[in-house]
Amino acid sequence: MLLVHKYGGTSVGTPERIKNVAGKLARLKREGNDLVIVVSAMGDTTDELIELAKSISSSPSRRELDALMSTGEQISGALMAMALEDFGIPAISLTGWQAGIYTDENAGRARIKSVDATRIKEELKKGKVIVVAGFQGICDQNDITTLGRGGSDTTAVALGIALGVEKIEIFTDVKGVYTADPRLVKNARKLDVISYDEMLELASQGARVMHTRAVELGWIYKMKIEVKSSFEDCPGTIIQEVSEMEPVSRVRGIAHKKDIAKITLKRVLDRPGVAHRIFKPLGDAGINVDDIIQNVSEFGYTDISFTIPIDDTDKALQILEKVKEELDIKEVLCNPAVGKVSIVGVGIQSTPGIAAKMFGLLGEAGINIDMISTSEIKIGCIINEEDVERAIKVLHDGFGLGENS
Amino acid sequence: MLLVHKYGGTSVGTPERIKNVAGKLARLKREGNDLVIVVSAMGDTTDELIELAKSISSSPSRRELDALMSTGEQISGALMAMALEDFGIPAISLTGWQAGIYTDENAGRARIKSVDATRIKEELKKGKVIVVAGFQGICDQNDITTLGRGGSDTTAVALGIALGVEKIEIFTDVKGVYTADPRLVKNARKLDVISYDEMLELASQGARVMHTRAVELGWIYKMKIEVKSSFEDCPGTIIQEVSEMEPVSRVRGIAHKKDIAKITLKRVLDRPGVAHRIFKPLGDAGINVDDIIQNVSEFGYTDISFTIPIDDTDKALQILEKVKEELDIKEVLCNPAVGKVSIVGVGIQSTPGIAAKMFGLLGEAGINIDMISTSEIKIGCIINEEDVERAIKVLHDGFGLGENS
Repeated sequence: MLLVHKYGGTSVGTPERIKNVAGKLARLKREGNDLVIVVSAMGDTTDELIELAKSISSSPSRRELDALMSTGEQISGALMAMALEDFGIPAISLTGWQAGIYTDENAGRARIKSVDATRIKEELKKGKVIVVAGFQGICDQNDITTLGRGGSDTTAVALGIALGVEKIEIFTDVKGVYTADPRLVKNARKLDVISYDEMLELASQGARVMHTRAVELGWIYKMKIEVKSSFEDCPGTIIQEVSEMEPVSRVRGIAHKKDIAKITLKRVLDRPGVAHRIFKPLGDAGINVDDIIQNVSEFGYTDISFTIPIDDTDKALQILEKVKEELDIKEVLCNPAVGKVSIVGVGIQSTPGIAAKMFGLLGEAGINIDMISTSEIKIGCIINEEDVERAIKVLHDGFGLGENS
Repeated sequence: MLLVHKYGGTSVGTPERIKNVAGKLARLKREGNDLVIVVSAMGDTTDELIELAKSISSSPSRRELDALMSTGEQISGALMAMALEDFGIPAISLTGWQAGIYTDENAGRARIKSVDATRIKEELKKGKVIVVAGFQGICDQNDITTLGRGGSDTTAVALGIALGVEKIEIFTDVKGVYTADPRLVKNARKLDVISYDEMLELASQGARVMHTRAVELGWIYKMKIEVKSSFEDCPGTIIQEVSEMEPVSRVRGIAHKKDIAKITLKRVLDRPGVAHRIFKPLGDAGINVDDIIQNVSEFGYTDISFTIPIDDTDKALQILEKVKEELDIKEVLCNPAVGKVSIVGVGIQSTPGIAAKMFGLLGEAGINIDMISTSEIKIGCIINEEDVERAIKVLHDGFGLGENS
């Protein structure tokens, strides 16, 4: 059987861990499986390389950053191949370009255009375990590109699709996808299965298990993705189509975010094009705006609120100061001490009573809701940052998500 | 004017040094020059990567070692390009395969087969400074290869040839080629010019300024190579054809080696094929044998002596123990405390009196000569390791090589 595995930075964080993984893979190979392994950079390598770049230039070009950062996975790939060979298993490491991962030219956040798996298939025929450097590819200009944070997940899904497997496995430092962050909620339950869209909401709401784009790609091609522990040998969570799943219309998990700031623009002239003139410069500056809420217009004016990552606050306020003058906005307010808690589940938004129950649970706990934002499968509340952990527990218990509930 | 520079590991050892070099290159670019820059890995990166490999496997495959080690130059290349861009100079870093460096398949010691400079020329036309990762190339299988220790020098010479420049410049941590190691001999003199063959002898005899293969390649294509300091702005030593040089037939420099061991095989049956059966297994084990001396045969038996790097002693003795039994050799002796001192200069071996003078100078100083080996342009003496430094000084003074002589 052809297995496609991905091992994250923690799983290959030290030479010892690489050897552990290689030992496990050697067993799978001896049992008759073919293996294609995608690896991330070891531990903090990527961050260290970025630091190195920043010591050279405050604004290094994306093209050179990609050339730099891609070395992290090339290193861990070569080491994994060496470790396999040391177990007597024929192996070969391939960089993104050697593995035929073709991307567009957007350095730093390239998207995979196609995969030419010719070389991988050739090496598989020779009986070798293939170790592919994740997170990277090559564009038409023959330049090395990277896929953005967590891009190794995307590499694994793309290779799974190109090689025609039914499921890929992502080995990471958690046992799977939980009903809430298990570090905060003691009786959080590991989900056996979850749908692509629920996983997307959980990921975008702060559950840092999977790279969003990898889930999207898996969704499009209906590639099953199993997220599981690389340290313990037990089933993880399978991300797959909703049809095979537990009954819908119930809350599947609690997601949360801290480190966000709420910005409110008071008395904005309510005219076509105004929103564009506010959010375009923020987007151009690379600021990820979330939870945009615009109140009902009154006398031709409206208030607009949204959240941004806390680290972008200074940059955002600078930009908004200009926007304020241009658009004659009365006031720009910023609350840096907010957080977000969301309930996620297919159908919950259209199921009567669930939203009300959420608001009720929070209210009973004395937690004030500042803003509400919803999607098809998510209801999110912006609350005080200090209330976030309590809110997660209240909702997790209230919706009966715990192991023993 | 198109300049081809190479900067060694010390010259790019820290972000600060990279910025210094970039500043200098920015000036050269602004003065109207085109620049192709070859960089080594930062400082001890290569050694660190080898250590990492050894922590995974005691005998990592060369193919994977090359994939691993090539990242060192990819990193320093990207950083140099960033530093140049930070000075407002358009720049682009290219890996070996992006720069069109094609090699044979001998991983770890690949030889450059050809250079396709199309991309370099394209990027030069766009006004960019080209930063090429040294030490590496790509073979027909699309695998990354490395050229062996110091291979970045070879990269620079090969690029110089492909781009049709008259001279390339190697920037390093010494000011040039000296009449003797300036750390040992106070009045050692920097040579303005030196011939390719003299440089080769000096390099192979322990003067660690230039990579031997780079000099050989330069010699074949008559590419002038200037070795100079990357920290001080002064002329270095130009390696070029002998015709333009100072009068020949005089001693040009003193080379030396420590860290070698002398092996003697006593009573070896003197028959055709015996030498092959001794040295073949040593060569197969990658042991660099030097200074082979075979005494006159007596009663059908002979003694054979040679030197090897001290680190290879255990491995060599193991191999020779087997050879001893096979060939019925009486004894295998090893002296790990020897060194070598050589005088180098075109014509000296055929000039009467020079060898005698060398032996006389050493004798007067009470230094015992253990073995003598000569080449066209070198006379070398194996002596006690503890006498090496004194021997260098005696010869340097005796042959009048000092700055004030």
